[in-house]
Amino acid sequence: MSDEVDVPESHPRYHSLLTRHRIEAGVETGITSQQGLIAQGRGEAFDYLLGEETIPSADRAARTAAAALLRADKPVLSVNGNVAALVPEETVALANAVDADIEVNLFNRTEKRIERIADHLGAHGAEEVKGLTADARIPGIDHERAKVDSDGIYSADVVVVPLEDGDRAEALGEMDKTEIVIDLNPLSRSPQVASIPIIDNVVRAIPNITEHAHDLKSRSEPGLHSIIEEFDADTALREAERTIRESDN
Amino acid sequence: MSDEVDVPESHPRYHSLLTRHRIEAGVETGITSQQGLIAQGRGEAFDYLLGEETIPSADRAARTAAAALLRADKPVLSVNGNVAALVPEETVALANAVDADIEVNLFNRTEKRIERIADHLGAHGAEEVKGLTADARIPGIDHERAKVDSDGIYSADVVVVPLEDGDRAEALGEMDKTEIVIDLNPLSRSPQVASIPIIDNVVRAIPNITEHAHDLKSRSEPGLHSIIEEFDADTALREAERTIRESDN
Repeated sequence: MSDEVDVPESHPRYHSLLTRHRIEAGVETGITSQQGLIAQGRGEAFDYLLGEETIPSADRAARTAAAALLRADKPVLSVNGNVAALVPEETVALANAVDADIEVNLFNRTEKRIERIADHLGAHGAEEVKGLTADARIPGIDHERAKVDSDGIYSADVVVVPLEDGDRAEALGEMDKTEIVIDLNPLSRSPQVASIPIIDNVVRAIPNITEHAHDLKSRSEPGLHSIIEEFDADTALREAERTIRESDN
Repeated sequence: MSDEVDVPESHPRYHSLLTRHRIEAGVETGITSQQGLIAQGRGEAFDYLLGEETIPSADRAARTAAAALLRADKPVLSVNGNVAALVPEETVALANAVDADIEVNLFNRTEKRIERIADHLGAHGAEEVKGLTADARIPGIDHERAKVDSDGIYSADVVVVPLEDGDRAEALGEMDKTEIVIDLNPLSRSPQVASIPIIDNVVRAIPNITEHAHDLKSRSEPGLHSIIEEFDADTALREAERTIRESDN
């Protein structure tokens, strides 16, 4: 890719530098907001404490997420500025693997940013990107932040919300959806209200869900169901917290 | 202040929101860089784990820093974009309390940003701001990043470097200066190479050093010396790390 950093892949901090570079490129193109840059920094700190790797409980969560997405009637991947900047191709690959819709959904919503993000995803292979119609509302939150598409997130049964704000994560959870949250801070509200919290960097988590989806594609409905039943969100959150507290990075 | 957030001081996250607002205002005025926003996010994450308060070991470090600054022949406060955006008045107050020079020193150095930061500090009461002459070099680091004033940081015996990059903190330490680093991550290199690491938010640490300086102003030279002798940097770093690991925030 032409927009990558000039750092060899063997460099110990290659992925961390690549991630930061993509976020900064996202600012240049108007995809990433200032809040997005600050959020990136918070994520870097927690990822550092996690050891910058996918811990076993996060891998189990990603596998459970893949099972839930494969079993869904109407799965939707919610994309914000940081997700679009960091993992555009990877998001499209996941959508294809589990036959999900992609919907742009921003905390600081402007039509211009939604269009830019939709164009960016299109340039990375997305055929259709929802989020511009915005003809439905998530109940219980601010008007602007509640806007979703009626045939997208609003009517989804399983929704992936990476890097979601706590209020909206909670409101989506109350709509009886299976909510998959990707977040690096196990103590923040979004993963705590999620059905399936994945405490991992989106850069690792999204491709990992896709890989699990390919593995699980031929599983029967009861097979997928039992994977989902075996997963315990509280245990996963506790394991992530323990790793952060006890790591010697 | 006219540039503050519209949040009541009683709000539990008042200081955190105020800090973020000041950083964002710093971007508007060209003082804070994109890297500065990401660094702010990293700081927020570690401050969250610290409990967003000055822990006892950080208070001892701040007192030791005050003693070292009062005892110095030529103390200098190094100021970067985030420090200027977050604590302009507080930096000027500290400089006055310990009779220190202020020098702007940027990781991503441009003349324009240095001038803007110097102007910003001037608007907050600084009489003289060094950093524009840049007629000396810190040995052992990149040309651009090594630039300092010969009658400022270069010849200082005690230097306060809040939010400093690891390479430069190390190079400054090797110049046999007493280096006071303020950083929220006890595991990062800058506080680890510092003579006096203060693991605290600059928003709390700078005014705290000033307060200690007022308390210690009438102490004798041997009295200040014994405060400095009693301080152990490794113990302070370990205590901060323990707080981060064991907090239940």
